[in-house]
Amino acid sequence: MENDRLEKQIEFITEIDKLKHIKRQTILMDGSRKENDAEHSWHLAVMAMLLSEHAADKNLDLFKVMKMVLIHDLVEIDAGDTYVYDEKANEDKAEREQKAADRIFSILPEDQAREIRALWEEFEERTTAEARFAAALDRFQPLLHNYKTKGRSWKEHGVTKDQVMKRKESIKSGSKILGECAERLINESVEKGYLKE
Amino acid sequence: MENDRLEKQIEFITEIDKLKHIKRQTILMDGSRKENDAEHSWHLAVMAMLLSEHAADKNLDLFKVMKMVLIHDLVEIDAGDTYVYDEKANEDKAEREQKAADRIFSILPEDQAREIRALWEEFEERTTAEARFAAALDRFQPLLHNYKTKGRSWKEHGVTKDQVMKRKESIKSGSKILGECAERLINESVEKGYLKE
Repeated sequence: MENDRLEKQIEFITEIDKLKHIKRQTILMDGSRKENDAEHSWHLAVMAMLLSEHAADKNLDLFKVMKMVLIHDLVEIDAGDTYVYDEKANEDKAEREQKAADRIFSILPEDQAREIRALWEEFEERTTAEARFAAALDRFQPLLHNYKTKGRSWKEHGVTKDQVMKRKESIKSGSKILGECAERLINESVEKGYLKE
Repeated sequence: MENDRLEKQIEFITEIDKLKHIKRQTILMDGSRKENDAEHSWHLAVMAMLLSEHAADKNLDLFKVMKMVLIHDLVEIDAGDTYVYDEKANEDKAEREQKAADRIFSILPEDQAREIRALWEEFEERTTAEARFAAALDRFQPLLHNYKTKGRSWKEHGVTKDQVMKRKESIKSGSKILGECAERLINESVEKGYLKE
């Protein structure tokens, strides 16, 4: 019985190795290549550890935020990474990701499948303090990468200041201070020519 | 003041982007390339979430284990990854890593530098239940990758069953069940010709 659980868990651990191949539009800070989802998820988890003092809700459950960001992109193993400024791809994103969640999470023992799915849905719904802070990190990190690489990914996709500013709003709802910092980075990016007006 | 803290935190978050470039000897399960430390750290953190029920100490602090595995390899940004079976490189590993810890962690605000350093030292010392379980995951994960890639990394380095069996002991001290599972994987690997006697 115990071994049956472990077997399922190891099958899942094997399956999620694929996240290391899911490329994002974010460029690593040294400009060498695109980031993948596993690296991104790790970065967010460490950021959560270090930045939770800046969260809008000081009483949030940081442990939950960390679990959330670690698993938030697993559905992209099947659904792929949907670029935040790609309107067409975002139309059927939710449907593709629900299907992916059905397949991937159900590899786990039932109780753990339920737990991970609940975490992922909470993240997607953005209604709790934990989900809002996790989402703020998820927006802030690529912004920082864009700033550090002189807007490489923005330029590649012809993204404008207005588009980036709109996304910034969700940073503010998870963390006022991170939201203000994001605003400074965006304004500086325009001044420096990393991002077009 | 608040902004001074955030500035240091962002400098650290920028610095640790380099972990995504630190290559390990582990090969990804699809055989395509070597894994990097950021991907590895992410994988361990998810494993901790899912496998803590198998830990030797049922009362361990899982939150701490997750923080530990997320930061356990940061020193390799300066010290590089030291292959576990490379005796020569392991001679001055501790010294190189202490130096790296001095530089990297001190980028953070002092209180956080102390917290992360304490977590890293606890991991290195293997004297607490959390550190032993974290170390078990850190040994088990590359073993699973070796098994899934038919011993690619073992073959590349001429590693023998005895060497792998010796490392397995530390898996058992963090988790009896994972230790037994490791033993099965090692024996099967020898049978299948992935690992030499």
